[in-house]
Amino acid sequence: MVADHFVNDEAQEFLRKIGIEIGILGQLSHPLDLPFFAPRIGGGQVGRRLILADRLRDLEPLGEHEHECGIDIVDAFAIPGEPVVLCHRPFHAVPQRDRQAAYHHLHLRAGTPLAKALDDMTATIHQLGAARTPSLQPMLNLVAPEMNRVNAVILDRMQSEIPLIPELAGHLIAGGGKRMRPMLTLACARVLDYPGDRHHKLAAAVEFIHTATLLHDDVVDGSDMRRGKTAANLIFGNPAAVLVGDFLFSRSFELMVEDGSLKVLKILSHASAVIAEGEVNQLTAQRQISTSQEKYLDIIGSKTAALFAAACRIAAVVAERPEADELALDAYGRNLGIAFQLVDDAIDYVSDGETMGKDAGDDFRDGKVTLPVILAHSRGDAEEKKFWHNAMLGHRVSADDLAYAIGLLRKYNAIEDTLERARHYGQRAIDALAPFPASAAKDALVEAVEFAIARAY
Amino acid sequence: MVADHFVNDEAQEFLRKIGIEIGILGQLSHPLDLPFFAPRIGGGQVGRRLILADRLRDLEPLGEHEHECGIDIVDAFAIPGEPVVLCHRPFHAVPQRDRQAAYHHLHLRAGTPLAKALDDMTATIHQLGAARTPSLQPMLNLVAPEMNRVNAVILDRMQSEIPLIPELAGHLIAGGGKRMRPMLTLACARVLDYPGDRHHKLAAAVEFIHTATLLHDDVVDGSDMRRGKTAANLIFGNPAAVLVGDFLFSRSFELMVEDGSLKVLKILSHASAVIAEGEVNQLTAQRQISTSQEKYLDIIGSKTAALFAAACRIAAVVAERPEADELALDAYGRNLGIAFQLVDDAIDYVSDGETMGKDAGDDFRDGKVTLPVILAHSRGDAEEKKFWHNAMLGHRVSADDLAYAIGLLRKYNAIEDTLERARHYGQRAIDALAPFPASAAKDALVEAVEFAIARAY
Repeated sequence: MVADHFVNDEAQEFLRKIGIEIGILGQLSHPLDLPFFAPRIGGGQVGRRLILADRLRDLEPLGEHEHECGIDIVDAFAIPGEPVVLCHRPFHAVPQRDRQAAYHHLHLRAGTPLAKALDDMTATIHQLGAARTPSLQPMLNLVAPEMNRVNAVILDRMQSEIPLIPELAGHLIAGGGKRMRPMLTLACARVLDYPGDRHHKLAAAVEFIHTATLLHDDVVDGSDMRRGKTAANLIFGNPAAVLVGDFLFSRSFELMVEDGSLKVLKILSHASAVIAEGEVNQLTAQRQISTSQEKYLDIIGSKTAALFAAACRIAAVVAERPEADELALDAYGRNLGIAFQLVDDAIDYVSDGETMGKDAGDDFRDGKVTLPVILAHSRGDAEEKKFWHNAMLGHRVSADDLAYAIGLLRKYNAIEDTLERARHYGQRAIDALAPFPASAAKDALVEAVEFAIARAY
Repeated sequence: MVADHFVNDEAQEFLRKIGIEIGILGQLSHPLDLPFFAPRIGGGQVGRRLILADRLRDLEPLGEHEHECGIDIVDAFAIPGEPVVLCHRPFHAVPQRDRQAAYHHLHLRAGTPLAKALDDMTATIHQLGAARTPSLQPMLNLVAPEMNRVNAVILDRMQSEIPLIPELAGHLIAGGGKRMRPMLTLACARVLDYPGDRHHKLAAAVEFIHTATLLHDDVVDGSDMRRGKTAANLIFGNPAAVLVGDFLFSRSFELMVEDGSLKVLKILSHASAVIAEGEVNQLTAQRQISTSQEKYLDIIGSKTAALFAAACRIAAVVAERPEADELALDAYGRNLGIAFQLVDDAIDYVSDGETMGKDAGDDFRDGKVTLPVILAHSRGDAEEKKFWHNAMLGHRVSADDLAYAIGLLRKYNAIEDTLERARHYGQRAIDALAPFPASAAKDALVEAVEFAIARAY
């Protein structure tokens, strides 16, 4: 389904000439589908094959099956929310001038999907010789096989005899997202060398709580976009989004009950109440330019960090580790969550829509008083303060107003200082891992923090 | 606070002449407040005293304290959602002509609150010599002291540091409602002679689930009224209603986790998922005149009866009774819930707004295809079918249209047949109680079924 947007017949033909066959991996989520899929993109007679997929998470597990299907995947490049380009091993040997020729031949304009795809390949090649950019990849690698099992639980348990439920839930769930929270549960369990599988259901429960929250959030905010797609409430209506959110929330508790740990139930039911409190708190702070930094931190601590913390902590519970380990993972998740939200709130003023899967300036138009705004407002002169006041009340929401706001954020270094705060919490997250011995899993958790912050650049 | 609406000074003065002193019991919920309250309505020198209260549930426990405060309560009359009139013992001896004189003297117009109050007293007197009218009173009596403890849990656990949460939740919770579901938990525990108090928290959890559902329902339906008051979403906005619903839902699980029974958690998390499914199913049936009777029964079985069933069943769990008892109470609650909803759906076409705490014809205007409509539609001729089709699509929603619709319901006996179905499920509810030995508690459960059905008359 993505194919139509990416490559027309002419482009496909040209690429074949330079030895590249392109296949599209749409919302394929099971790596075992790859052997069935690979023949459809050219079989063995093509020297170079690409798979364009629409979500990073779907692809990594494919690496395990590369020999089965004759595709030798050696590199992957992804921007969160963007198409992923997997390069067949010899691709980076395609001469630069051939790639340039491709641009000309295909009349590529900057910004078309194929141009972007080719740009990404160039970037990939560039990366090979460059300094390491922090990536989620190590964590994705670490949890890939288990994430498939979590995804299977998610798909299985979002079903219902009422067709609208899987339809609406699927719009959001199958639509992607990084699945950060369940991934954290899996990765933390790896840090603890937990050998069981109880956490698969619980990771799915965590994702259901998150999905329910997103559905209700979009109703509350009247959002247009979510994860680069039209928000569910716009397609299916607010009533359905509210009720399917309730269903997923109930389902998450059913999953926890099946697992049977009262401790996990306590952690996640408390986190859920805290999230709801944080959301209400955010609602009362909306359009209030007088919101303090402290209140802002309270809000993101509740609405975002509480679930990150709980997702990590429950790994220690299923692994039956002492409370100190629970608290360490809780602190890791909590601080990572705060850093993550701070970066999100910064990016909201600098994203180009496609990168974030939502429009730049959404927070500005919604009158969400985030840290960049709080900092720029507090440092501004009387006239600038008045601007922020009016803007948050919704009286200054034009593109020009947004541009002016971004100018003020730059003038007062508000984005950079927000990211500096994010680095502070990121460091606290990394420090919280001190009690755990060195391991690839621990390295992946550390790099996830670095990635969370590097997203902004 | 109700006083101002009920009795002006002139009326008070006249009533005093005929030996009646009126006091107003507002939202008084603790019977122990009565001794402090009683002196304010006249002390010992008045022969007849009335207490007007705004909710039935508040009053019955007062009976326990009648001797302490010198008020001898012998009768109570209540219409759900209406003011309750408690008559001091000698009141029925007030001669008929004195009461008629009161009407004239007070220039009472039909429909004014005081006229209604006096009418109610007349009705009460009539009742004394008539056949017993089924009442919730025996169940209220049965659980009154425990319900106070449940109410205390509810008030305590709806608190939050975010003031909007208790404010919004309080609007709905303190605003009354019969608290049928927690009352059922308490009454069923009595049937089983359960001596403990674990069910107090769980009954509060059940009420929180119900309250969360009501908040989300009102957002989904865009309701104007709930329990005779402006719906919370209209006062506080849809976003707040959604999020506070989420909070109460999370809180309900926290309460269950504190109790610690995985079996209860399983029953109530499953019921919650079923309720959400039922609500989504109802949404998809909305405005669809082709909805079958079977689908309608599925919907009310999920959205209403599932929580009634769970509320009853958990009493057997805390009492550690065999599964057969769990299933019997589940069946009682489920069938009562279906009967209850059938009667509600019938009343929606015959209520006068004040009786139900919501407007008559709400379902009609919302395009809710309930059993009365399904029956009248299926029995109607082509033109009438077309009317229902258009009406459910929202093209016929005037007062005249509603009057015509009610005419069709009468013509095809649709209301009476809906109530006949309610009696069927009511009888099944009563039969489900067969395994339990005779007791006052069992009698109260039986009478609650009779009351649920008699509400319609």
